[in-house]
This record gives sequence, C-alpha cells and structure tokens, in this order.
Amino acid sequence: MLLENEQINHFSRFFKKAPYQLNALHEADAELCQLHTDDPFVLAVNVDGIAEEIATGLYDDPYLIGWMCVTASLSDLAAVGAKPVGMVLLLQKPADYPTLLLDKIRKGIADSCREHETYILGGDTNEAASLSLAATSFGLVDLQHLMTRKGCRPGDFLYASGPLGIGNAFGFVHLIDPVQPIHYQPKARLKEGHIIKRFASCCIDTSDGAFTALAQLGTLNSTGFKLEVNLQQLLAPDALQLCQLRQIPAWMLLAGPHGEFELLFTIPPSKHESFLAESRHHAFSPLRLGQVTSETHLCFDLEGIPLSTSLSHIANLYQLHKSSPQAYFKALQQQHFLWKQTSAAKQPMTY
Amino acid sequence: MLLENEQINHFSRFFKKAPYQLNALHEADAELCQLHTDDPFVLAVNVDGIAEEIATGLYDDPYLIGWMCVTASLSDLAAVGAKPVGMVLLLQKPADYPTLLLDKIRKGIADSCREHETYILGGDTNEAASLSLAATSFGLVDLQHLMTRKGCRPGDFLYASGPLGIGNAFGFVHLIDPVQPIHYQPKARLKEGHIIKRFASCCIDTSDGAFTALAQLGTLNSTGFKLEVNLQQLLAPDALQLCQLRQIPAWMLLAGPHGEFELLFTIPPSKHESFLAESRHHAFSPLRLGQVTSETHLCFDLEGIPLSTSLSHIANLYQLHKSSPQAYFKALQQQHFLWKQTSAAKQPMTY
Repeated sequence: MLLENEQINHFSRFFKKAPYQLNALHEADAELCQLHTDDPFVLAVNVDGIAEEIATGLYDDPYLIGWMCVTASLSDLAAVGAKPVGMVLLLQKPADYPTLLLDKIRKGIADSCREHETYILGGDTNEAASLSLAATSFGLVDLQHLMTRKGCRPGDFLYASGPLGIGNAFGFVHLIDPVQPIHYQPKARLKEGHIIKRFASCCIDTSDGAFTALAQLGTLNSTGFKLEVNLQQLLAPDALQLCQLRQIPAWMLLAGPHGEFELLFTIPPSKHESFLAESRHHAFSPLRLGQVTSETHLCFDLEGIPLSTSLSHIANLYQLHKSSPQAYFKALQQQHFLWKQTSAAKQPMTY
Repeated sequence: MLLENEQINHFSRFFKKAPYQLNALHEADAELCQLHTDDPFVLAVNVDGIAEEIATGLYDDPYLIGWMCVTASLSDLAAVGAKPVGMVLLLQKPADYPTLLLDKIRKGIADSCREHETYILGGDTNEAASLSLAATSFGLVDLQHLMTRKGCRPGDFLYASGPLGIGNAFGFVHLIDPVQPIHYQPKARLKEGHIIKRFASCCIDTSDGAFTALAQLGTLNSTGFKLEVNLQQLLAPDALQLCQLRQIPAWMLLAGPHGEFELLFTIPPSKHESFLAESRHHAFSPLRLGQVTSETHLCFDLEGIPLSTSLSHIANLYQLHKSSPQAYFKALQQQHFLWKQTSAAKQPMTY
C-alpha cells in the first residue's frame, strides 16, 4: 500500500460518493463526472497544489512556480484524455510578497496557459505565512474513450510518452548537489493523451515519479510490471549526463518523487499495431518500457542483475524520509548497495 | 474602487479570457462557462480558500473550518442560482497536525456536504507550515436564468435572503471582546438562489459582509443603494443582542468583512409581486432592505440622521487595517464619531 494513499483514504473515509462520479478514489488522475445521463461528454476535474515544492526550495524560481501550477493540474487532465476547458487559481501569499516576484509567477501562469491553449477563469487570493498556489482545472472527455488508471492486464505493453528522469535530476541538483544546471519546464501531454486514450487500457501521469506511478497502477490493477530495456535508455539527455557525472544508478531517477509529467500507459496486444501506426501518423514517439505482468512486482535489470522488488516499497522510501533530501538519497543508495550485495551472495533478489 | 479588486485586476491583467466564459472579472460570484454552444446548461465554477480566518484565530474550531470550507464555496454557487454537482478539496497542513483535529475538520466537511446535498469528488493534500483549506465547487445553472452581479437599475428593490450581521458579531466576540458566545454556522442559500434567479436583476453573496457586497454591486452597475429600514431590524437576534450589550451601532455589523453568507439581490418593480408570491409559496421570507438608486452612494439612516457615504470607503477600511482587528474596530468607531459630529455641525453628510 502506498503511504500517501493511506492518508487520503483515512481523510475521505466518511465522504459519500457522488452517484454520477464514474471513478472511485485513486482510480483516475482526474475526477470524472457524467453531468447528464445522455451526455456523450464527461467532465474531468482535478486540483493540484504547489506548496511543498516551494517550502523545500525545490521551486525557487517564481516563473517556474507559476508554470508548474498550471502544468501540473493540466497533466492530470492529459492522463484521462480530456480537453481542458479552463481553470481557477488559488493564490496564498504573505502580505509583503514582492510585486516583482508576483509578476514573474503571473508570467509563468500566462505562458503555460498559452502553451496548453487554456484559460484562467477566475480565482481566490488569501494572505498566508508562506507562498503557495493551487489550480483546479477541468475539461471534457468523450465517454466513449474514458481513460483511467484501471484496466491493464498481464501481457499489455507498457509505454511512456517521453523520456523520464528529468524531474528527479532537477531535484538532485537543487536539493542535494548543484553539479550542473538542469532545465526543467515540463509540458502537459494533452495532445498525446488524445492519441493514447483511443488505444490504452490504463494511464497515469508521472507527476510523482515513474516508480510511484507504476506502484499506483499495479496496486489498482493487481498486476506488476517488467521493464525490458536498459533503464539508461529511458532517461532524458540531461538526466543521463547527471547519472554519469555522479555515478547515480539510472533506477534512482525513476524512483524519486519529483516527476517529469509524462504519461505512463499500457496498450493491449490487440491494439498495438494500430497504436503504433497512429503514433507515427502524429509524429509521436512513445518509449516502450516493457510489459504488464501477473506477478505483482516491479522487475528490472539492475546493471546486469535481474531484480524483482515490491511495487510500493521504493515509492514509500520517500514518504519515510520526506524531511531530508539527503537522508532520502542515502536510503536509495543503501537500497542499491543491498541489492548488489544480495546478488553477490547469490540470494534471491526479491525484496 | 475596492482595494481587493485592484489586487486581483493587477494579478490577472495579462490573462486571456476564455471565449466561452460568460462573465468578466468580478461580474459573478462564480465563473460561468458555456461548454457547448447549444447547451441549455452553463457550468458554474468557484474556488474559495480558508486561510486568513485560520491564521487570525477567527476560526479556531476545526469542525467550523471544515464546515466553512464547503459552505463558503457553495454560497458562491447559490449566488448564481446554480445547482451544485460537487467539489474538490485542497488540504494543506503541517506534518504533525493532530489526527483528532483532522477528524473534526473532516466531520465539518461531511456534515456540510450532507446539509447541502453535494459531494466531495476528490482533492489534493500538501504539507505546509500552517493549516489551510480550499474548495473548488462546480454546478449547473440553466442559461435561461443566468444570474450575475450585473443588471440592477435604479428603482429595483433591494433584498437579503435572511438576517444579517452574525458573521461580524462572531468576529467581534472572537477577536475583540468575548462578551457572549455567538453560534456561527451559516448555510449556503442554494434553495433560495433557485427562487431568486427567476426574478432578480442581480445577486451576490455576503461572504465579505453586506456593505462590501453592496460596494461590489454598486461599482459594477454604476448605481447606489438606499437602505430604507432601521438597520437594527436587519440584524440576526444574537447580533442585535451584542449591539445592545456593547453599544455597537448596527451599521458596523453590516460593514465588517466577515459575512453571514446570505444573498443580496435586486428585484425589478415589474417582477416584484410575482417574486413575493413565489417566495410565500416556498415559505421563503426575504428581508427588504431598500432600493437601487442612480446616485452612486450608500444611503442609510444613522440613528435618526440621513447619511450618504461612498460605496467602497467603508469596505476599504478593513483592507487598510487588516493586520489588527482592534485598529479596524477603532477606525469604524472614529467613522461613526465623525458622522455624528458632522451632523451636529449641520454640515452635509456625504463623506
């Protein structure tokens, strides 16, 4: 069980479910509501707050804060294949927050709206001890192509909409070791979502990192995943360069909690050929990661050693060391060392 | 100009307006979007954050915090006559926030949802230095009965959906002088909104107090308002009792920034009789306050003295003394003294 899910389950356990809501808790990146029984369109709604990223210093650039507030919320719409209608903003800031910085936040918001062809409809501002932003975005998706986190089966192919690891690379250089600058300004994969939804059996965005996304999908679908490529091949160029500079194993940049806002999705074998053809037609080059397995583990190749680990174990390491990026990175290193050691002793590699 | 509007205007001045949004900035309590050109229903969306009320100690009861988070957002749907579909929540809290208090917040949320027959669809949680909540609610309203803050004309009758002043009375006993307990647990006037929208020329909720609401309506419509009743008759029983106990002039409980979440609305003379008949039919007893005037001032009777004041002047006093409830209350008292003095000197009473 993912620790983050547990908290949400506890908080919402007495809330009544809306009769017209099509998804249960955790089952989709955005909440899906059928407003009228005969409506061919479903309303997708999602709220996403940027607070911890500011408090920890991960986002110290006001332009990035504005950009991410909009982009993170839209990314959840992308993961259900919705076309955005617009969003409302919540801005909480200290009374004396500098106008110059506020103007940069606003520019980040406006630029992301333009990039993603959507609109700020309104909002609310509050004074608060520290800066935080949140966006609630909503969009429409055709009922016929409803895409959620549920539906994959063993044998389905696992894909990502693009290279991974840049979010965690950015986190590493910002919070642990400023070895090289990393440009981080992800886009919400809205256009890709529209292609994917016609073929995918399930989809999720990698806002919390790729391994956390896989843990969510695996838990919901009672499946596991086998990554069948060299993990370095999945990394964005800057992320790969960082790995090489600092001897960071590639899996760590998939395991960390700060994502790249790509889509992770699964394609049933029966639709595989047509998915590839349609992707080519749109000049969309998804990355093939591997496949869905019936064994509920995450399997990948650790520098030549076949490895099988619990789906939520790696994702939960962050929750357990949330207060210190250094302690978290050390926990990842210890995990790596443990895996290598166990392998050297020829013990079974399942954690 | 209302100071709060100025900040929002500045922040949003480069945001592009959505082509399908039916209202401009400040023109409605909720943002109104027509999703399809031939859709007889309009989507109403609104976000409302509870942060300052917690930071100042005004809301120190976690149950009330939960209740108000839901109710405040729904009240804006009521003011556009929308039927709520549901809401998403944003919860920001310190990592060590006690579970017992969190459970009380959750109960307040669940109880308000049940009371207003709506649902929590999902949400997002973040760790933050201090507790804050926000809700984005959305609902549907029929295009035929679209109700905004715009549309009133001189001669229209001014009404409130119920007694006023309890929000500011609660603020007074919580932050200034704990003279008597005040029970404060407002409801969103959703059912009343459905009646009102069939007759009203404009509508706003009193979330920021009655005078602030009137300042918004007057500014948008280039009108003023004449209150034609003894202001004490407009107060809720507990608010009136507080006025009498502490010699607080009634107007101050209408002027303060903490509202009672009633609806303020205007009825054209041509629809007045049918509005009253329909209200009686639904056992709804709105309070008649006075009428809309062409002179852009707020006129009322100050203990026997006819008074005319600038619409935004009183509302802005709070923004100018936001950091101290005591200083704000003193500013109101000085204003009252100034009015009385000017009257005694037989000078014109327009501020």
